[in-house]
Amino acid sequence: MNIEEFFELSAGKWFSHRTSHNLALNKSEHGKSEIITEMLAADHPEVAKLCQKYEIDPKFASCGARVTWNGKMESHEEKHTGSTVLVTVPNEDNPNEGKLLREMGFGEKAPVAGSYKIGSDEALTLITEYETMWAEERLWFASPNLRMRVSVLKRLGSFSMGSFTSEIRMGGTSPAKASEAANSASS
Amino acid sequence: MNIEEFFELSAGKWFSHRTSHNLALNKSEHGKSEIITEMLAADHPEVAKLCQKYEIDPKFASCGARVTWNGKMESHEEKHTGSTVLVTVPNEDNPNEGKLLREMGFGEKAPVAGSYKIGSDEALTLITEYETMWAEERLWFASPNLRMRVSVLKRLGSFSMGSFTSEIRMGGTSPAKASEAANSASS
Repeated sequence: MNIEEFFELSAGKWFSHRTSHNLALNKSEHGKSEIITEMLAADHPEVAKLCQKYEIDPKFASCGARVTWNGKMESHEEKHTGSTVLVTVPNEDNPNEGKLLREMGFGEKAPVAGSYKIGSDEALTLITEYETMWAEERLWFASPNLRMRVSVLKRLGSFSMGSFTSEIRMGGTSPAKASEAANSASS
Repeated sequence: MNIEEFFELSAGKWFSHRTSHNLALNKSEHGKSEIITEMLAADHPEVAKLCQKYEIDPKFASCGARVTWNGKMESHEEKHTGSTVLVTVPNEDNPNEGKLLREMGFGEKAPVAGSYKIGSDEALTLITEYETMWAEERLWFASPNLRMRVSVLKRLGSFSMGSFTSEIRMGGTSPAKASEAANSASS
């Protein structure tokens, strides 16, 4: 699986169930949301726009995605909704690793490019470093209709948060992968 | 890291925080426990005893561990306590993979040997297949004092459960790895 195939398999509507463990307080928090991922071709205007923010020539982008979420955390009344654009810029010598660009997060002063890596085990690892924070996320497909994510967050040198997300594809499979999904989900 | 080093780093007393996601019902459940892992040398009598149950010559065992737990799930009144013995039997041609023997689980008729694999990313993957169930667990150290575990369970062909466990070493570091732990936890 390459990064474009990983994005392609991620396309669609997902039910997402997230649990975070606060490692200092030994407390946990749940959230549930619907996530819609739309694949963007490398030449999509949104991909070019994001590349320009990072001062990267859009011709180096290999694919993109728009991710939209709508959910709530157990302990909060308000709903969390939002959307972001992601763009992959593979390394020239090894396309299984590269930069991951995304629209600026809340409270960020400047765009921070993360890095991605697709391992030989077909898991995708994303690493983002901020001034005082370091985040690593690992994503993989247990089956084409079940995606898992684990992330750890380090603040000021010590791990502060671990979180686990299980995501189930809603309303069947992605059209492109329907037959493959049917085979793999039952194997 | 080889399998013996992974066991060695696991030795000690851990605070374990587990969350399970029931994938069919979208419900989750928490549990907290204390886990004590004691390393057993390859020539320990308990290691030999377990090998004999599996009809394996004890000379092929590379190491063992006794794991004792004491905890409770959020939704249950009763405490869960127990202990088990694990033994690794590396493949002759590649010691990073092999069999994982363990004392019989509750309700099991016959001993079922699982398999282990240490990846190039230093994560340990355990796979156990039963008659109607398949379980995969991935364990890794985010730092020497923080161990993470993710498992997925498949019953009768479809995924039924995903769970996430964060484990924090209690009362300082393992003696053998104290200086290394101090370095890595702050890096």
